Amino acid sequence: MKRATKTLIVALGGNALIRKGQKGTIEEQFENLKLPIRQIARLSRKYKIIITHGNGPQVGNLLLQQENCHTVPKLPLEILVAQTQGQIGYMIESTLDSELMELGINTQPLVSLISYVVVDENDPAFKNPLKPIGPVYSEKEAASVPYPMRKTAKGYRRVVVSPKPVSIVEKREIKKLIEMNFIVICCGGGGIPVIREGRAFQGIDAVIDKDLAGAKLAEEVGADIFLIATDVQGVALNYGGKNQKFLRSVTLEQAERYIKEGHFAPGSMKPKIEAAMQFVLDCGGRSVITSLEDIEQAVAGKAGTEVIQDVLELPDGESKT
Amino acid sequence: MKRATKTLIVALGGNALIRKGQKGTIEEQFENLKLPIRQIARLSRKYKIIITHGNGPQVGNLLLQQENCHTVPKLPLEILVAQTQGQIGYMIESTLDSELMELGINTQPLVSLISYVVVDENDPAFKNPLKPIGPVYSEKEAASVPYPMRKTAKGYRRVVVSPKPVSIVEKREIKKLIEMNFIVICCGGGGIPVIREGRAFQGIDAVIDKDLAGAKLAEEVGADIFLIATDVQGVALNYGGKNQKFLRSVTLEQAERYIKEGHFAPGSMKPKIEAAMQFVLDCGGRSVITSLEDIEQAVAGKAGTEVIQDVLELPDGESKT
Repeated sequence: MKRATKTLIVALGGNALIRKGQKGTIEEQFENLKLPIRQIARLSRKYKIIITHGNGPQVGNLLLQQENCHTVPKLPLEILVAQTQGQIGYMIESTLDSELMELGINTQPLVSLISYVVVDENDPAFKNPLKPIGPVYSEKEAASVPYPMRKTAKGYRRVVVSPKPVSIVEKREIKKLIEMNFIVICCGGGGIPVIREGRAFQGIDAVIDKDLAGAKLAEEVGADIFLIATDVQGVALNYGGKNQKFLRSVTLEQAERYIKEGHFAPGSMKPKIEAAMQFVLDCGGRSVITSLEDIEQAVAGKAGTEVIQDVLELPDGESKT
Repeated sequence: MKRATKTLIVALGGNALIRKGQKGTIEEQFENLKLPIRQIARLSRKYKIIITHGNGPQVGNLLLQQENCHTVPKLPLEILVAQTQGQIGYMIESTLDSELMELGINTQPLVSLISYVVVDENDPAFKNPLKPIGPVYSEKEAASVPYPMRKTAKGYRRVVVSPKPVSIVEKREIKKLIEMNFIVICCGGGGIPVIREGRAFQGIDAVIDKDLAGAKLAEEVGADIFLIATDVQGVALNYGGKNQKFLRSVTLEQAERYIKEGHFAPGSMKPKIEAAMQFVLDCGGRSVITSLEDIEQAVAGKAGTEVIQDVLELPDGESKT
């Protein structure tokens, strides 16, 4: 087998494990994983592969369980993120293992790593916890829960800080592993959030956006393609509206304008676009947002929405990328 | 720094995280880890290091939480083991990170891996689930719990199978990492138990003894020293009795005899001795059982109980190892 030289990072959305309308049994989660992982197994013939993933429903379930159990010491959020890295890391790794064996290309080393990610304690996000996580409470229940709470469309929910990722602690290790042709699963759930305290790291109650963490990872390991796989075919204007229009590509300048015009929902498509833009802007790499069904097609440039460098308008009317 | 050539595997007992009499808050667990991890950090100057660890109380807490929460799909035991690998892997890695930084030797790559371990579906253990895990139930509660239950000294408890580890799935990866001087944390909680099903692995409801998994790992990666760190200073005859006697060394033959004589409690010292014996017998390496306080001293041959090859009695009365 020819050695791959280009590195592809695939960021799997929460729907890679739990589809809309499902309860999220373990059988469902394993079954759902086959669709994206089979494509990634095939792509490993051509690319060095890094997989990252979300953990929203899983961390929500752990929170719900610990709120309902009063005989066990409650764990801080960063530990629950670590637990979901164990769970989902195992599920992705074992599914990929099986798919690689099916393809007869199981000679490539494969690891799933615990990863923690440094955030800045002066990040403005710390002044304003905005990200709702875990169970929904009534107003009365919410008053007795010892966390910052906020009224959402569903009811009262715990809100946590979602600071920007500054650096992946294991970047050096991940880079070495990729150089040695390992397939690496890492930075699950956006990574375990930590701040620097002198010579140590201190875990904090926060959640890092998994796509922003993926873009940071792509930058720090020098990836070539950063692909975000989600539950829609790509980026759309007027999403869900009458004149909804999917885009095959969007320049950085256009993307910025669409964000300002409010085309992309916060906590949904907006952070994905921002993550994709960040990688294109900072590293000049390829960023694609696509559906779980179309991962391979999108890598081939035949599906999804590609975020591209601005097209420079030249004076004589020609355009040049 | 001179490159280490010998590989040391340290298997940390449950008390490395939660001491007797503690509730097991996260602060306690991080604090407790410093004692063994500081010693391991110093040992990394001389040895290639692999760390493995138990997960009894942590997996028990997860079980308790999911039994108390009826709105979230219950996860099989192997997934809970995976979650504890995430949790404890993160805690060990970040503590070791800090201790290495304190020592100014933070140039060594360090990873914590999800690991699964193949067991044999024909292992006789499957006919007789013996290992009690998780919460204690009354007789009435026990009747409604959908798992095999058994009456123990504490009350009714769920019992699971504890089959022998056959092979560490990630052994190839761990070996490569060790060759490249990575410090590796792996096989937590004895590893996630799986059986082979054609070209895939299937997780199963079982728990693998972490010391037996450690011995298998030591064999498969070709380690030189296998050290089991626990809450007593070493192996004792008549443990807890009037004429308790700690041993500084024990030959394979002696150990076998003492086991037959019932000196070692099943589920406690017995599997540790058996794991240590297995490594000495199969690989001719050094096996030491010691306390968390004495890890460095035991590696230096100055503490703990060393399991050694049988001393051959020669006809002329001399002895030869």
